[in-house]
Amino acid sequence: MKYCSTCGEPVSHRIPVGDNRPRYICDACDAIHYQNPRIVAGCLPIYEDKVLLCKRSIEPRAGKWTLPAGFLENGETTSTGALRETSEEANANVDIISLYTLFSLPHISQVYMFYRARLVDLDFFPGEESLETRLFDEHEVPWEELAFPVITQTLELYYSDRKTDTFPVHTVDLIIDRKKHPLR
Amino acid sequence: MKYCSTCGEPVSHRIPVGDNRPRYICDACDAIHYQNPRIVAGCLPIYEDKVLLCKRSIEPRAGKWTLPAGFLENGETTSTGALRETSEEANANVDIISLYTLFSLPHISQVYMFYRARLVDLDFFPGEESLETRLFDEHEVPWEELAFPVITQTLELYYSDRKTDTFPVHTVDLIIDRKKHPLR
Repeated sequence: MKYCSTCGEPVSHRIPVGDNRPRYICDACDAIHYQNPRIVAGCLPIYEDKVLLCKRSIEPRAGKWTLPAGFLENGETTSTGALRETSEEANANVDIISLYTLFSLPHISQVYMFYRARLVDLDFFPGEESLETRLFDEHEVPWEELAFPVITQTLELYYSDRKTDTFPVHTVDLIIDRKKHPLR
Repeated sequence: MKYCSTCGEPVSHRIPVGDNRPRYICDACDAIHYQNPRIVAGCLPIYEDKVLLCKRSIEPRAGKWTLPAGFLENGETTSTGALRETSEEANANVDIISLYTLFSLPHISQVYMFYRARLVDLDFFPGEESLETRLFDEHEVPWEELAFPVITQTLELYYSDRKTDTFPVHTVDLIIDRKKHPLR
């Protein structure tokens, strides 16, 4: 951020009076521009014993497999955002069962949420951000070709929980060294 | 948003190519400025049979009682944000037990998360955003003087769950008519 989005004058980066961390502040109109973490909402779509994955057509991690998910939009609930992304990326019709995983990724200021969801039919097909959409049995999951650690962990938790058929909400802090793993 | 925060030129509000909803776009440098929901993280601090509430010193809802909570900052996990707010608003030392409630408030593009937390000692006192901090037994809770619906619901869920001593994560969509309830 270099300019004030309210008045167009240059901003400085300093701690406002009464605050304790630097913000972008407009020296002309005094506006303070806060920046906050973003939410990524998605689904873990399940059909019988299979899980629906999408092969990404876009960077980052083009060609790798992911669960349908994307940035929550203003005016959405977390579940409607998860449903929208599942529709956009896989044209999949699902019913949400319950919140399943919640990840904090402080190194990129993101919070991921995945909902377990029941795939209603098999009429899914790739959206613009996907090259391919398909169902995987557990032994078919391309573990080495998954796009992000949150995908790997959500699938691992699911296959572990499936043994007891209990699916509590899992909250995970993913602290990753960005220098070692620039793509995560 | 009226001006581009990247180059300072005026922005327009229209749907970018390949997108499906209007964004603020800079006609000079082509930057697209996305706006997304913000997360509010907080704690439900518990000591024996009592709950810690804070009387707000600031608007909105100054003079009303709340649980310690505030906007998640970049670089924080949801639980460290909840701990920071509990420290800032009540100077309270707590240990987080687990995620407890998650509310979507689409009318104000916010997502609230409260963690159940154990108050470690009684050395709490009001921070700058609080007039008073005190422990309440269930029969003492000032139900008519609570600041926000998310506070009322989190406390109601807690007292209900306490009967069975089971505290699953509750996800709630709070759809509120902003014209009727401008302060919520």
